[in-house]
Amino acid sequence: MNRSDLFQQILKKQSFLCVGLDSDWDRLPSHLKSLEDPIYEFNKVIIDATKDLVVAYKPNTAFYEAMGPKGMASLKKTIEYIPEDIFVIADAKRGDIGNTSRLYAKSFFEQYAVDAITVAPYMGSDSVKPFLEYDGKWVIILGLTSNGGSKDFQTLELQNGHKVYETVLSTAATYGSADDTMFVIGATKAEYFENIRKITPDHFYLVPGVGAQGGSLEDVCKYGMNDQVGLLVNSSRSIIFASDGANFGEASRDKAKALQQTMASILQARGMV
Amino acid sequence: MNRSDLFQQILKKQSFLCVGLDSDWDRLPSHLKSLEDPIYEFNKVIIDATKDLVVAYKPNTAFYEAMGPKGMASLKKTIEYIPEDIFVIADAKRGDIGNTSRLYAKSFFEQYAVDAITVAPYMGSDSVKPFLEYDGKWVIILGLTSNGGSKDFQTLELQNGHKVYETVLSTAATYGSADDTMFVIGATKAEYFENIRKITPDHFYLVPGVGAQGGSLEDVCKYGMNDQVGLLVNSSRSIIFASDGANFGEASRDKAKALQQTMASILQARGMV
Repeated sequence: MNRSDLFQQILKKQSFLCVGLDSDWDRLPSHLKSLEDPIYEFNKVIIDATKDLVVAYKPNTAFYEAMGPKGMASLKKTIEYIPEDIFVIADAKRGDIGNTSRLYAKSFFEQYAVDAITVAPYMGSDSVKPFLEYDGKWVIILGLTSNGGSKDFQTLELQNGHKVYETVLSTAATYGSADDTMFVIGATKAEYFENIRKITPDHFYLVPGVGAQGGSLEDVCKYGMNDQVGLLVNSSRSIIFASDGANFGEASRDKAKALQQTMASILQARGMV
Repeated sequence: MNRSDLFQQILKKQSFLCVGLDSDWDRLPSHLKSLEDPIYEFNKVIIDATKDLVVAYKPNTAFYEAMGPKGMASLKKTIEYIPEDIFVIADAKRGDIGNTSRLYAKSFFEQYAVDAITVAPYMGSDSVKPFLEYDGKWVIILGLTSNGGSKDFQTLELQNGHKVYETVLSTAATYGSADDTMFVIGATKAEYFENIRKITPDHFYLVPGVGAQGGSLEDVCKYGMNDQVGLLVNSSRSIIFASDGANFGEASRDKAKALQQTMASILQARGMV
């Protein structure tokens, strides 16, 4: 899916919501666990309940890998079940030397047919560029993350006067373009968005940390939005685990709907829809 | 396997060689491709041919993930085939927020039962510490990598006067200890090892880049060895793809043997064996 198509989906659905399919086995409703593929069955219900409210799904691959080879089969079936017009992100945070990153690209873009994959920037250009060789596919590079450990290295000051994550953004933005590259920007740091937008005005940001991690949607939009919206705001646990009862689909829809309606209000207030 | 056991294995085998099982489908000998699980069959031959010469095997997970769910089954069978007294490293370069890293730890230490996993440091302490909660297991953190892109961020100068990778080493060394943490240090930068040893005198380093990537074993040992050896030197393609004919096992043994004999000479010259 290209940038223009993604923007059109956002306008059509009045939503820039991404739902994280972090389908942790230990938190699945117990009535699903006797089925042949409980994680897939869970995801199907969540997808059916939310697909008109979201523009993206983001399975974090850890939750599938933790189940061994059969978990990867659940991931593949889940991705195949997602409607064509919804953007799919493999949240895999990969990154390796060139010939190995090429294999990861092959894995995620060919075997699992996702639209985008998250990657870690530490190994630099040749760890990222192989993902950019696929037309119509995206790489989403960790910029500023929402976890406590982000202070260990990302926010250290460099001798060039910039923080590490700022230089990651400005350098990694040159690997590709705003048409094939997004950045992960943690929502617990809404005040940083103003500065980040100056460095990368046109890029989409994948914003985790709204919901369970405590970020504010309004603040993110105030500082982070650009004229093509430029945001995919992710919520995972607070949507998919809204209930562990038989009604978990409806409960997830209610949570997703509340976020989508806030997003619609923001888009309307800005005259974008 | 603990540090003392690893050191004893090194002395016993007069080897600190790690063979990278980067079993790229496209480079497998063609006569294997009609078998049910060619990657597993290839790995079995390599392991049988080299197991008395090596102290560690390091499958890079990208080559297994690229084959989809069945590739992960090949990985699991391969790890089960490796003898108990050989250290197994999942070269996965993972790293995510705490609850997700915990799942990766579960995946690799429980589902695949490896001794160690490589992780990327960008997300900081809470992305690494969940791996350290497993007794007898190891985390191997990217320090200074051997690829061209390592110059993009790792070698930038911080305002504290140190390079980014130096601060990664000194900070990440505090997450655990030399008994549960190693670092990846690229062999194409042998001259950096002297300084790196000052920052982390007791830690083991996993050293890729000897062989296909052009690093010199002698230089690495001259600057990087400590009194418990402190090095696992990895070679992947130059060993496992030494031949694509029916004799590929013997050819890999010859390449591994040459490296092991150089290592034995170095250990003997230092009076360690």
